Amino acid sequence: MKFSAVPADGSRFAAAWSDLAGVGRDRVRGGYSRHGFDDADLELRTWFTEQAQRRGLEVERDRNGNLWAWWGAPGTDAVVTGSHLDSVPGGGAFDGPLGVVSALLAVDELRLRGLTPAKPLAIACFVEEEGGRFGLPCMGSRLMTGAADPDTVRRLHDQDDVSVADAARRAGLDPAGMGPDPARLASIGTFVELHVEQGRLLQNADAAAVIGIGSEILAHGRWRLTVTGQGNHAGTTRPADRMDPMLPAAAAVFAARQEMGRHLGAVATVGRINPIPGGTNVIASAVQLWLDVRHESAHVTAGIVDAIVAAVRQEATAEGCTVMVQRESMTDRVTFDAGLGLQLSELLAAPVIPTGAGHDAGVLAAHVPSAMVFVRNPSGVSHAPEEHAELTDCLVGVEALADVLESLVR
Amino acid sequence: MKFSAVPADGSRFAAAWSDLAGVGRDRVRGGYSRHGFDDADLELRTWFTEQAQRRGLEVERDRNGNLWAWWGAPGTDAVVTGSHLDSVPGGGAFDGPLGVVSALLAVDELRLRGLTPAKPLAIACFVEEEGGRFGLPCMGSRLMTGAADPDTVRRLHDQDDVSVADAARRAGLDPAGMGPDPARLASIGTFVELHVEQGRLLQNADAAAVIGIGSEILAHGRWRLTVTGQGNHAGTTRPADRMDPMLPAAAAVFAARQEMGRHLGAVATVGRINPIPGGTNVIASAVQLWLDVRHESAHVTAGIVDAIVAAVRQEATAEGCTVMVQRESMTDRVTFDAGLGLQLSELLAAPVIPTGAGHDAGVLAAHVPSAMVFVRNPSGVSHAPEEHAELTDCLVGVEALADVLESLVR
Repeated sequence: MKFSAVPADGSRFAAAWSDLAGVGRDRVRGGYSRHGFDDADLELRTWFTEQAQRRGLEVERDRNGNLWAWWGAPGTDAVVTGSHLDSVPGGGAFDGPLGVVSALLAVDELRLRGLTPAKPLAIACFVEEEGGRFGLPCMGSRLMTGAADPDTVRRLHDQDDVSVADAARRAGLDPAGMGPDPARLASIGTFVELHVEQGRLLQNADAAAVIGIGSEILAHGRWRLTVTGQGNHAGTTRPADRMDPMLPAAAAVFAARQEMGRHLGAVATVGRINPIPGGTNVIASAVQLWLDVRHESAHVTAGIVDAIVAAVRQEATAEGCTVMVQRESMTDRVTFDAGLGLQLSELLAAPVIPTGAGHDAGVLAAHVPSAMVFVRNPSGVSHAPEEHAELTDCLVGVEALADVLESLVR
Repeated sequence: MKFSAVPADGSRFAAAWSDLAGVGRDRVRGGYSRHGFDDADLELRTWFTEQAQRRGLEVERDRNGNLWAWWGAPGTDAVVTGSHLDSVPGGGAFDGPLGVVSALLAVDELRLRGLTPAKPLAIACFVEEEGGRFGLPCMGSRLMTGAADPDTVRRLHDQDDVSVADAARRAGLDPAGMGPDPARLASIGTFVELHVEQGRLLQNADAAAVIGIGSEILAHGRWRLTVTGQGNHAGTTRPADRMDPMLPAAAAVFAARQEMGRHLGAVATVGRINPIPGGTNVIASAVQLWLDVRHESAHVTAGIVDAIVAAVRQEATAEGCTVMVQRESMTDRVTFDAGLGLQLSELLAAPVIPTGAGHDAGVLAAHVPSAMVFVRNPSGVSHAPEEHAELTDCLVGVEALADVLESLVR
């Protein structure tokens, strides 16, 4: 994001944005690669801590590595806002950081308004929301709420075989402490996450709709398929002798597309595929690929996965390959607190919209009244370097978040 | 390869093999990843140099990084044997090193026979025969013979963006010196490469055929296809808004298989595919994939590539994606010197067989009489950790190579 002409009230936003602009750039993929406990992530967390402390907020790291910056002493019925600092591989600048930066600036705005919160107010930064490194999205919020088993999480590992436990340890966090944090969860009265919209509902619905309130998150999950064949020489192995796992893998791509056509509102994607060994002149011995499937109904989502896996298995049988399926995550449909959503929608005169993207707010929603505030995204593109929101819209977002927090902390 | 019971005359072979066993193991893919100028490659080259020097051979490195170990002063009409030390990613132990180890042991054998060569004899180790790091197979022999342009080669780079020039420099080789070496080429009278068979012609043809002589190499080449779409969020992008390059990429896999069925003796493979950015919850913005296509006829090979590319373009048009095709290498059919082949076939009572695999001997064949000696591979598997030849067959190979060299240096 480049602000050639920064409005007076946008200079603080632009300054914060510029602090983040150079951190974790991905020179190969474009955009940003910032993942849980990696160098870029740690640098962003240090930045957040400094920014919060400059504002007189007290920063603590919880047992799962999430950061909490408190205005007022931590206590019950707290109003919490925030988001995450990590990205998908080669992701955009807005998904995550917009919510964190807006939260810091909303605190400034509330101070300018002379507000003294009647309830504790905190900004939270959750760990590895995208699951870009260890495969499990919303790792930090899932651990805190008990939605993910800490033993399983500690053993997850990245592409370089570094486990969550080792990565946490390197970041100075004792992995033995990871797991449910019921006391912290009980202290939260309301959670509000501001986020760039991922899609064009606001853009399409009404030119004046800069801000939207989240109604629900589709059921969504990730599955890893491992197709195993026989590695061999690409130049000397006759067609009849081949057991090439790339064919069943390619079938998954087409099956996913076909299933989208069969179920209105469903999305099914293969965005990651990894042939082993991955040599030009080598028939792969195995292929790993990842399925991302989402639909309003968890039941339909599971059916879509079954249909794709069946297509892969059929091709695998013909090719003499085997297929292994591992569910990496599955989140049922989340409906945000209807009363809170209505309250915020009226306060901001903003439409209520659903989303297909998972968020920490979706994980927290099972335990505390939660809401999401979306900021318009003109192209709808997200999880890509082109992800964008206009500066003026971002400033409207800060104002909106300040209004929301002010109404909640009274 | 594990020798539980090593025959008396196999102990030197087993010792050499055991020296190499631990170098460049690929813990992720299995097997070995040894690539031009990388640490494993440099370690193997040091090992080769020491082994050659122990045998009183004089070792030199040519301007392209190939190693030459001379028995007798370098001169015209030299008899040269050898192979390469690099592997494909996650490759087997035999492809390459078997030819180098057998050459060293054949020299021992000739010494035991009391031979004094009438012609200079050399063992050559060519750089990056597999093209596993920089994409160009037979890099060392192509540079030496002028079959590859040194300016182009110096600019090739690996996945970490390290250029051939930088990698060579790191290995102590001045990249400015790379290029045609006509004097060296002119000094070679005959080239013989011993290699593990990649396929099962020897195994299937006749139970007694441990050794075969190469007749020809199919025309073969590599093409890189880049399909570009629009990166986006896997959860929020509606089917109609998608420009997903994975679909045209998957079409390439099926088209390659279909083309194999249309042309007898053709092989076409996609063994390497790289979605960018490669995130589970991200529609890829682009996909790179590599095609390996081979057939007796270069014309048919080109036609197969055209048909695959047409299938990819058709899917790309439907998806709103674009396709870019780059030919990384193309080698016309190579027929080895018929007279030399007949001579060796008679000497060893060995059948003459073709191969679909490229070799340095295929590159040299355009300039000097060249031949290949193949050692039986029971499963036919190659370019994979399961690649195997029996110890007793390897020892027959050493004897055969010694016989060949003895007949040629007289």
